[in-house]
Amino acid sequence: MSTYLERGAARRAEIDAAIPEEWRLPSIPSPSEQRDITGPYIWQFLTSREKEITETEAEAIVQNTTSGTWTAVEVTRAFCHRAAIAHQLLNCLHAPLFTAALASAAELDAHLAATGSPVGPLHGLPISLKDQFHVAGTDTSMGYVGWIGTFEGNADDPRTGVFESELTSALRGLGAVIVAKTSVPPSLMAGETRNYIVGSTLSARNRLLSAGGSSGGEGALLGARGSALGWGTDIGGSVRIPAAFNGLYGLKPSTGRMPYEGAANSMDGQNSVLSVVGPLGNSVSALRLGFKAVLSTRPWERDPLCLEIPWREDKAVLPSKLRFGVWKDDGVARVTPPVQRALDVTVMKLQAAGHEVVRWAPAPEFQEEITALLAQVWAFDGGADIHRALGLSGEPPIPPIEAAFGTSARPAMDAGQVAAVNVRIRKVRKGYLYWWQSRGVDAIIAPVAPVPAAREGMYADYGYTMWVNLLDYASVVVPVSKVDKGFDGVVEGYEPRNEQDRICWESYDPEIFDGAPIALQLVGQRLQEEKMLAIADVVVEVLKGYE
Amino acid sequence: MSTYLERGAARRAEIDAAIPEEWRLPSIPSPSEQRDITGPYIWQFLTSREKEITETEAEAIVQNTTSGTWTAVEVTRAFCHRAAIAHQLLNCLHAPLFTAALASAAELDAHLAATGSPVGPLHGLPISLKDQFHVAGTDTSMGYVGWIGTFEGNADDPRTGVFESELTSALRGLGAVIVAKTSVPPSLMAGETRNYIVGSTLSARNRLLSAGGSSGGEGALLGARGSALGWGTDIGGSVRIPAAFNGLYGLKPSTGRMPYEGAANSMDGQNSVLSVVGPLGNSVSALRLGFKAVLSTRPWERDPLCLEIPWREDKAVLPSKLRFGVWKDDGVARVTPPVQRALDVTVMKLQAAGHEVVRWAPAPEFQEEITALLAQVWAFDGGADIHRALGLSGEPPIPPIEAAFGTSARPAMDAGQVAAVNVRIRKVRKGYLYWWQSRGVDAIIAPVAPVPAAREGMYADYGYTMWVNLLDYASVVVPVSKVDKGFDGVVEGYEPRNEQDRICWESYDPEIFDGAPIALQLVGQRLQEEKMLAIADVVVEVLKGYE
Repeated sequence: MSTYLERGAARRAEIDAAIPEEWRLPSIPSPSEQRDITGPYIWQFLTSREKEITETEAEAIVQNTTSGTWTAVEVTRAFCHRAAIAHQLLNCLHAPLFTAALASAAELDAHLAATGSPVGPLHGLPISLKDQFHVAGTDTSMGYVGWIGTFEGNADDPRTGVFESELTSALRGLGAVIVAKTSVPPSLMAGETRNYIVGSTLSARNRLLSAGGSSGGEGALLGARGSALGWGTDIGGSVRIPAAFNGLYGLKPSTGRMPYEGAANSMDGQNSVLSVVGPLGNSVSALRLGFKAVLSTRPWERDPLCLEIPWREDKAVLPSKLRFGVWKDDGVARVTPPVQRALDVTVMKLQAAGHEVVRWAPAPEFQEEITALLAQVWAFDGGADIHRALGLSGEPPIPPIEAAFGTSARPAMDAGQVAAVNVRIRKVRKGYLYWWQSRGVDAIIAPVAPVPAAREGMYADYGYTMWVNLLDYASVVVPVSKVDKGFDGVVEGYEPRNEQDRICWESYDPEIFDGAPIALQLVGQRLQEEKMLAIADVVVEVLKGYE
Repeated sequence: MSTYLERGAARRAEIDAAIPEEWRLPSIPSPSEQRDITGPYIWQFLTSREKEITETEAEAIVQNTTSGTWTAVEVTRAFCHRAAIAHQLLNCLHAPLFTAALASAAELDAHLAATGSPVGPLHGLPISLKDQFHVAGTDTSMGYVGWIGTFEGNADDPRTGVFESELTSALRGLGAVIVAKTSVPPSLMAGETRNYIVGSTLSARNRLLSAGGSSGGEGALLGARGSALGWGTDIGGSVRIPAAFNGLYGLKPSTGRMPYEGAANSMDGQNSVLSVVGPLGNSVSALRLGFKAVLSTRPWERDPLCLEIPWREDKAVLPSKLRFGVWKDDGVARVTPPVQRALDVTVMKLQAAGHEVVRWAPAPEFQEEITALLAQVWAFDGGADIHRALGLSGEPPIPPIEAAFGTSARPAMDAGQVAAVNVRIRKVRKGYLYWWQSRGVDAIIAPVAPVPAAREGMYADYGYTMWVNLLDYASVVVPVSKVDKGFDGVVEGYEPRNEQDRICWESYDPEIFDGAPIALQLVGQRLQEEKMLAIADVVVEVLKGYE
């Protein structure tokens, strides 16, 4: 039996070998040599046609592919090429699926030629999936070395390499082309992506920084435009964090809208706070396209957790004057200067456009209770599930996993304790609902993290994202600006109020962060996805021209 | 400290004392002296006006009260009078709220006189609530002697006697008048209603039989027409069983439609299979009226478990030809002859009306797994919650509770075991969903129980109702016929296949059951309440004229 390091390295070599010779880079610059690999840097490796295709937004791509203006094969090849380059620079792929993608694309082209009709609304759209969704023709590691070549850790399971998650088949049925499965941290329970397979996944905008996590491979790949639409999951920020850290848009829906059925997961069966599936993309319209398309497949007919709530166009109709709450502090780590600037500018621009913005400051007890409860939910089984999976290969937990779950399983809670936590969750949801109804805001503008992005090992406060999961609210991440070291300096003499605050503030170094994206999230009440996407359009509009 | 028997008797005396002198019956006939107290028997105690009002269906009542044709006070007094008589004969009330109801009614009349408008769509409608919903002015015992005079067992809780559940306030806001809270078995976890407060709650159609449970007081009271609309809850059959056993209509919705917020419950925080709130009434239109009215209050703005799914009129539009599955056997206890007759007749009449009926026979493993899983869910905490509540007064568990939960708490499951059960639940839901989609039926016609009603202590098989809860499906109970001892004889030489089957079949005695109602349920997929109510109308229509 080889060691976890050898097995991880062997898989890494297989991934690299799946990249065609002609797409390999002659050399890989260090992060300090080449911090930002987007734009001109990556263009140099592409043909002008490939550049044109991959710089096109998802909605325009499907206009071209469904009408036959572009072939699916040409579009797929361009994205595969760009994804291959992205991976070499960012370590973002767990499974390049280029050969299968080109074969699918050829079938789509043949279908269109034969019938005159596209297969579906995503006909020929190159997409990527977090390595948690099963795709036939490859395995799912979910970051665990011990899961390589197995079905969720079981080597004898006949589903290995053939089974597909509901999301996967829904997307295929819509005509999407799966170009790759992307990297995640083992167990998914971390806001940064590193594992013993691909190492650390980096941000395309700033390779000195982590791509975030747990949908970090999606963040990096879409940041480099190696995919036109990505799919992640979020139980504490795992769609929103990589979206924010890579200058992307991301949607965390409420539970019951997107199909989770048949995807691998950590702590499966923990049903107090559910992880949700959501899209990441380079525009609000890309998120809407993907979300609407999956809803059009009526996922509730295949996933018992999905609700029969189709796309509701009437919910996307907004009043001309919106009312926002702005939430600036989770009470743990204060936001660093670039995030503060993003908040200030967004508020100012919304007000200038005639919208109302009020201070959003629920009692600190809400946030403390929310954070405490979600931490308890994650610890229900004492980490048994995660340590069992790590134990398959003997790999040690990466530092953020060790910090949360220790080096071995702890005692599980009993059913009475679980129930008591569930009652407290319902109470805080009820209290927050009451608070929200009494304030009557359309959305809350909130940071995604105290930092614009994370340096590996220094992401110390999930409080800005966790509350949205515990409350099961809908949230859209919107990029606002980029760190400008001349602008977003450190606050001299800042006195951290606690250890988490200290780590976050010490991690923020304008020299290192220069050029990193800065994003905010727009949080709406439960099941308000249509409305939140429309509000994201409004925010994008008012921020137009601001960088 | 008095004993539980003394405390229960003291409360019983208080309940009796709340019945005005002029409404007291001179003597109470024994069940064998007066089996059926509906119709002519109860009419003898009413004025002809009271009879007219209380025999009127809910929808027609609100037409009269919202238009001012009838005053709310007159309507309320008629129902209070009839409820008072019902209680003396059936032991169905935990709290007569006649004085408060008449005061509310007077306010409603004043409002209508002053403004010309009704308060809401239920203006002046007398309703009743299972003694699980909090109503200001009284306490909630949930059948436990130890809860009398407390808030869910806590005597010092300032909410005692003042707090109201969301359903209660929603109904008040709609103009409904709460005439009484009704009896339940301690803990609610039984299909028959008896406790140390009111004793045994009996069926109005046949006092030799139990009213069923756990919403047994609702069943008895509505069976006697002492309320125009009732509200119960259902986690294993607790709305449907008393509806069926009392010749009523009952709706068990899927989770997330009706507000449960702020109601007392057993094993609160168990969130693997949730109890749901549903109406009981004397017609499909009564159920629809109540369900629609509560939805119109937008309960999702006050209850975090409610989904933003308003009443969907388009879901109530049916094709002219429906496709039914008929499910005749849960694999445990075979249905007794009257229930078999109800199934046969319903199928025949539907077919004669041009509908299609196919055999519904999912693999027996489905039903076995469903029953095993729900039994595990109920046992998550080892009965700790129930035994704690019983321990407050020292009352022993009633026999069905002792059978399910023992005489003291057992070890609780741990969180890993809970999660494993949750995964199995999701799998069986997925499997059943797949099965249903592949069969394409609109509804399943199914028994509610193997017996038309239950003799106390002899209700041995919940398999016909439990599956609907585990799968979170929507179900409407529809009365079909009445037991006719000349028609529905015993099957000579029937060989029971197991102990549960033996108890059920031995309990069925045509002499005793003569006149008892026979009902079926119409089960639809998750969140299909509008459709199922419309299908219930179709079934009622085809059964018209059959008795």
